[in-house]
Amino acid sequence: MTTLGDWVTQLNTDRAGERMHHLIERLYPICRSITGDGVRQTLDIVCEHMPLKRTEVPTGTRIFDWTIPNEWNICSAWIRGPDGAEVVNFVNSNLHVVSYSTPVHTRMTLDALQPHLHSDPEHPDWIPYRTSYYQATWGFCLSHRQRETLAPGTYEVFIDATLQSGSLTYAECVFPGARKEEVLLFAHTCHPSLCNDNLSGIALLSELSRYLAKTSLEFTYRIILAPATIGSLAWLCRNEHRWPLVHSGLIVSVAGDAGAVTYKRSRRHDAAVDKASAYVLASQNNSARVLDFSPWGYDERQFCSPGINLPMGRLTRSPNGTYAQYHTSADNLDLVRPEHLQDSLATLLAILNVVDADRTYLNLFAKGEPQLGRRGLYQMMGGTTQIAECQHALLWVLNYSDGLHSLLDIAQRSKLDFSLLQKAAALAVSAGLLTPTRRAFNGLSHHG
Amino acid sequence: MTTLGDWVTQLNTDRAGERMHHLIERLYPICRSITGDGVRQTLDIVCEHMPLKRTEVPTGTRIFDWTIPNEWNICSAWIRGPDGAEVVNFVNSNLHVVSYSTPVHTRMTLDALQPHLHSDPEHPDWIPYRTSYYQATWGFCLSHRQRETLAPGTYEVFIDATLQSGSLTYAECVFPGARKEEVLLFAHTCHPSLCNDNLSGIALLSELSRYLAKTSLEFTYRIILAPATIGSLAWLCRNEHRWPLVHSGLIVSVAGDAGAVTYKRSRRHDAAVDKASAYVLASQNNSARVLDFSPWGYDERQFCSPGINLPMGRLTRSPNGTYAQYHTSADNLDLVRPEHLQDSLATLLAILNVVDADRTYLNLFAKGEPQLGRRGLYQMMGGTTQIAECQHALLWVLNYSDGLHSLLDIAQRSKLDFSLLQKAAALAVSAGLLTPTRRAFNGLSHHG
Amino acid sequence: MTTLGDWVTQLNTDRAGERMHHLIERLYPICRSITGDGVRQTLDIVCEHMPLKRTEVPTGTRIFDWTIPNEWNICSAWIRGPDGAEVVNFVNSNLHVVSYSTPVHTRMTLDALQPHLHSDPEHPDWIPYRTSYYQATWGFCLSHRQRETLAPGTYEVFIDATLQSGSLTYAECVFPGARKEEVLLFAHTCHPSLCNDNLSGIALLSELSRYLAKTSLEFTYRIILAPATIGSLAWLCRNEHRWPLVHSGLIVSVAGDAGAVTYKRSRRHDAAVDKASAYVLASQNNSARVLDFSPWGYDERQFCSPGINLPMGRLTRSPNGTYAQYHTSADNLDLVRPEHLQDSLATLLAILNVVDADRTYLNLFAKGEPQLGRRGLYQMMGGTTQIAECQHALLWVLNYSDGLHSLLDIAQRSKLDFSLLQKAAALAVSAGLLTPTRRAFNGLSHHG
Repeated sequence: MTTLGDWVTQLNTDRAGERMHHLIERLYPICRSITGDGVRQTLDIVCEHMPLKRTEVPTGTRIFDWTIPNEWNICSAWIRGPDGAEVVNFVNSNLHVVSYSTPVHTRMTLDALQPHLHSDPEHPDWIPYRTSYYQATWGFCLSHRQRETLAPGTYEVFIDATLQSGSLTYAECVFPGARKEEVLLFAHTCHPSLCNDNLSGIALLSELSRYLAKTSLEFTYRIILAPATIGSLAWLCRNEHRWPLVHSGLIVSVAGDAGAVTYKRSRRHDAAVDKASAYVLASQNNSARVLDFSPWGYDERQFCSPGINLPMGRLTRSPNGTYAQYHTSADNLDLVRPEHLQDSLATLLAILNVVDADRTYLNLFAKGEPQLGRRGLYQMMGGTTQIAECQHALLWVLNYSDGLHSLLDIAQRSKLDFSLLQKAAALAVSAGLLTPTRRAFNGLSHHG
Repeated sequence: MTTLGDWVTQLNTDRAGERMHHLIERLYPICRSITGDGVRQTLDIVCEHMPLKRTEVPTGTRIFDWTIPNEWNICSAWIRGPDGAEVVNFVNSNLHVVSYSTPVHTRMTLDALQPHLHSDPEHPDWIPYRTSYYQATWGFCLSHRQRETLAPGTYEVFIDATLQSGSLTYAECVFPGARKEEVLLFAHTCHPSLCNDNLSGIALLSELSRYLAKTSLEFTYRIILAPATIGSLAWLCRNEHRWPLVHSGLIVSVAGDAGAVTYKRSRRHDAAVDKASAYVLASQNNSARVLDFSPWGYDERQFCSPGINLPMGRLTRSPNGTYAQYHTSADNLDLVRPEHLQDSLATLLAILNVVDADRTYLNLFAKGEPQLGRRGLYQMMGGTTQIAECQHALLWVLNYSDGLHSLLDIAQRSKLDFSLLQKAAALAVSAGLLTPTRRAFNGLSHHG
Repeated sequence: MTTLGDWVTQLNTDRAGERMHHLIERLYPICRSITGDGVRQTLDIVCEHMPLKRTEVPTGTRIFDWTIPNEWNICSAWIRGPDGAEVVNFVNSNLHVVSYSTPVHTRMTLDALQPHLHSDPEHPDWIPYRTSYYQATWGFCLSHRQRETLAPGTYEVFIDATLQSGSLTYAECVFPGARKEEVLLFAHTCHPSLCNDNLSGIALLSELSRYLAKTSLEFTYRIILAPATIGSLAWLCRNEHRWPLVHSGLIVSVAGDAGAVTYKRSRRHDAAVDKASAYVLASQNNSARVLDFSPWGYDERQFCSPGINLPMGRLTRSPNGTYAQYHTSADNLDLVRPEHLQDSLATLLAILNVVDADRTYLNLFAKGEPQLGRRGLYQMMGGTTQIAECQHALLWVLNYSDGLHSLLDIAQRSKLDFSLLQKAAALAVSAGLLTPTRRAFNGLSHHG
């Protein structure tokens, strides 16, 4: 039976990295925001990979302490200089317009225009990314180098955008497992032409869906694609009955750059997904990092708010704000590479494999060792010094299968590989020595 | 509203160090012991700073396993040599007479006198300090250099002291706060002309009283000035009903020398005052030390005896016995310096600020983040990389205000400054986002 | 009253190391296996040191998942070469025959003989030790150097052994203490001419019995000598009613070589014997090692199987499999030395002393310090800097005798020596200040 972990070695053959990068290329030009048709066009394309079910949440809907804002769509936008020549145009980069800009068409002096312009002197060639969702204003972003060439005089500014009653769109896709408890996988969809943040997350979950679809799963897996903050809040608000069913979860964001794989713990700190991720990252390589929870970052801010506190961590490469290209036009198709995307996917699969396969067994012959030799499970000639690693794995699984220690506990204690113990446990189960216990459910049992 | 922490920056302006040193100068000449008029004269002077209420415990009173001894007073004492010249005289230093010496007037050979003489060959110029409270004897202390000059012959010794039924004197002063639970502050009063041990403690609490009097306090503060051991036992014995009300406490002793600030944990090890002190010392400088509890030292031996076990630590500079001048005539006005006294007071105020201000809040909008922008508490333009430290503080306070984490817990977790979080919490309370929970009382709940 | 710890200093005078080595010399030539007369002859000799009670468990008896096999005895065995000359003969070394070899007398070519020969190319001069208890076969072991000289041709092989219904033999000896809870001490007896593994264990327990016999013991001590695995399982199976009475235990094996003293924790990890052993090894020297439990090694595999889980660790020098001579003819009388045996015994006595003497006391004067001076337990002249270590020990014992901290806890907290605290506690008990509490029983209360 194929496990989620078994797919890891298949990724090269599958050219999974290239496929993810190709999807990002297709999604890159679309102008997304927290609402509007850009998100819908994005979901249209992702739907080719997995059967997404969409939800539209109408403008004005109360979402906990928040309200769904007007829907924003934009057709075109430009600035013309004193000489009538175009200075910036939205068709060149959708980062040029502050997201959620109100419509405007007027003439103004450069001095009056300046407060509406945004650039970054530290990275003078890049266009920064700016938003103003909840304060009605408009603005343009441009490279600092270009801004400094602007001559005094009268400028014509034009933003053909609409801000009107509509809806916020999110989508989800469920892969049923043997148990109804769920593993949530979330990526945010609200960023325009920014590849790492977060087309990489969308691409990873799209590719993951292929493997989820063809694996016999223990848990039910739910992929959620939604705008950041207001989108995750909308899902949470409409799915409060599902909170107790969440066994584990991961926010996947910023997963395609060259930075080391990084796991940020859930607010619970030692949830099953925290333990599985810490174990996988520790066994992979030395540069992988595990960070403590902090109430700053992506949608873990909502999933891990104190009144929700789901057991969800975040899988990332360079954390937000720690790489220069973050939220600029330099977060482009060159920043994310197929090999990094594939490495992130391999890590994701390894973590989910541990989450899915970890369980506690009960040794049915717990008084003394069972006589393994009689069952063909023991080296026959005694006295030798060497003992095979798989023999060790079997002894470890038998000794610690007391209903208290899971395979992951045994892996950490024995320093043997999780997958080796997984195989030893399967062998012992088929020999009638072990039986799986009903795994304790790791839902909303504590808020520490 | 002024907090205890706010006074720290005021100490220089107040010339608090000089004022404490001046008080020590006035108290220095008085001959104190565990009973007698020296203690009363000392309290007369301290009373100028705070309204002390005195208690006299009569000779013969049972105090747990102890009994209040006779009261000791001394008028004069001297030794005259074979030539009739005065060798030592009490008027030159009250350390010359062993405390609680019985009255004597006799002549004896130097050989017979020797067992009654005490000097320290390791520090030949200093007069050691000796006591004999519970064994009736008499003795003189002198510098070893002087002792070695004593010629053979007959000496006349004279001690005009009384040991008769009287009482032991202690004093206390209460500064009421919003809550009846108390913070105890204790200094011992039984040492004669010794500045660091412990006029420094008396001076620190006297000066502290000025700030307690003008601060709106959460807890009730009780300053106790009493002789060591028998004095603290006397207070404890007569105030057994108050033990459960003690939230926190500090023994203040040996607080004026140049040694690093030192905190010795309570026997409970992780009481509120232990956590607050460890936090403050760690945030101050690297030489500050936190020591584990041990049943040796000052009155923490009594307050932290196993059947009392109050949550009280000790604030000290050089611990007793670790500096050469300890219990000698070199523990004088030069050993304690205004700047060290002031540094100790600053530490004391910072610790008491955390003790007084630390509490647990409940986030009233705990499902997801509350919309801070709508309340003017969030940076309005999204997308930027920088986020102000105060914004972080607000998010930390909101996320961990789950009724389980106090401000100090959050300070330790976030690595943000306690006072910054204090301000963020105040902001969130006034915005209606947070409410303080009733703080769990940290009294005699456990004896571990 | 003599304690187990007091014997440690006596071992040199007693020439304990030489005596143990001498016993090993006498037992060395005997051919032992998991059954048979070799074990019985061994017990006959050990019986000279302690009154062992023997148990014979008949062939065919079910022992948990196992069955007692036929009894094996061997008279002679040899191989003759093509020229009729003897190649190997059992009389030269009982390692030459695979233990539990079936009888055989036949001629065969060298090629046909080879699968029945065992040698070790890595140590070409040593005869390896091999067994085949549960698979009917026969074989010879010889040095690799000799094997390589074997000329092609026809060989005559002869093993005069019997495999028939009989019994497995184990023995035990009980030293009653004040309490019926037991300390188990186990050594395996099934190895033929191998000194370190495990004649050293048998010798250590034989010598220990001398000291147990002349000490007033708190616990009851039970020495068990049995074949490895099937022998410990047999004892466990017939003594299931005793499991809850086991307070502590030690498997003693491989205890005479030059390797550092090693303690392997019980599966419980923090049982009384684990704490005592870790403390003793830490206080002895830096090369002593404490290892975590693993389900591989000697009879701790059975005593610490999950359904039995007794609080038993293992005392060893070089762990099995980590020294070159392990399970070869080089594990001989030169590998084990009197000084190593004696060092192991000293460690064993020190551990058992802590196990036997550790207890929790209650301070009967717990409010404040009791007045020690009145009882002659305090330095009379106050004020001095020095305080004797024994005075400190008394204060530590008094302060932490709250019914929660045992002497070992106090030793670890105070960094004072266990035996010093032992003496201070005895002093305080005789002064009426302390009373021992009923020690919580550390039996099968948890299976963690």
